[in-house]
Amino acid sequence: MSEPVAPEIQALVSQVRFDAHGLIPCICQDAHTGEVLMFAFMNAESMAITLERRLACYFSRSRGKLWLKGESSGHTQRVLDIRIDCDADCVLIKVEQEGAACHTGFRSCFYRHRDGADTWSPEGEPLFSAEEMKAKYGKS
Amino acid sequence: MSEPVAPEIQALVSQVRFDAHGLIPCICQDAHTGEVLMFAFMNAESMAITLERRLACYFSRSRGKLWLKGESSGHTQRVLDIRIDCDADCVLIKVEQEGAACHTGFRSCFYRHRDGADTWSPEGEPLFSAEEMKAKYGKS
Repeated sequence: MSEPVAPEIQALVSQVRFDAHGLIPCICQDAHTGEVLMFAFMNAESMAITLERRLACYFSRSRGKLWLKGESSGHTQRVLDIRIDCDADCVLIKVEQEGAACHTGFRSCFYRHRDGADTWSPEGEPLFSAEEMKAKYGKS
Repeated sequence: MSEPVAPEIQALVSQVRFDAHGLIPCICQDAHTGEVLMFAFMNAESMAITLERRLACYFSRSRGKLWLKGESSGHTQRVLDIRIDCDADCVLIKVEQEGAACHTGFRSCFYRHRDGADTWSPEGEPLFSAEEMKAKYGKS
């Protein structure tokens, strides 16, 4: 993953603002339905890979390394559009999601909502069981 | 803004994970169109206010204080749905946006995208001019 970065990719990456840890938050949205699928972070290298390959690549803070989404599970995210906000300190990608974005088996990580009570309640059904996801995912 | 917090609101807030600075990232999405409007942070108090009043309230890191969205501009966000992700460390709110979410006058903060070249290009037109927004917003 450390091929030379094309000048136009370098130019794009240089225009965004990474935080003190070299990270930028990234919102991932289904390009077709508009559903927000997940939230993660990118560093400069993962952003360059995302721009270059048009496949979502994040930086895993817990594992301290690049995280090419779906590399082990097959649940990849093909990037159709990539946007930045007014302060250039947040990224939005619009993707075609293969399978489920969430390691729990739900299509979206945001499957729990307030339903009027004092708890966060799951809504809808997972696409895959927890066991299937564990087998597929490892942690990708 | 420091009225006593209802027990059910306290219960909901206690189930989310704030970071070392007491903050949680929040994605704000148009409830009707699915457009991602903005990205900001909440602390426990602003989240409780959001849950209680059903109006988006953030915590401004630059100003170090609560930020009831639209308080000075009138560009409020009525919250129809509030969700948390699988790790309970990111919030998604679905809102009815009054006017523009972005201080630049664009409806969404994510008005710039990669259009194939080496720059981030604005897409669409702002709803308000920069001058109108400055007059309206102050910094809300």
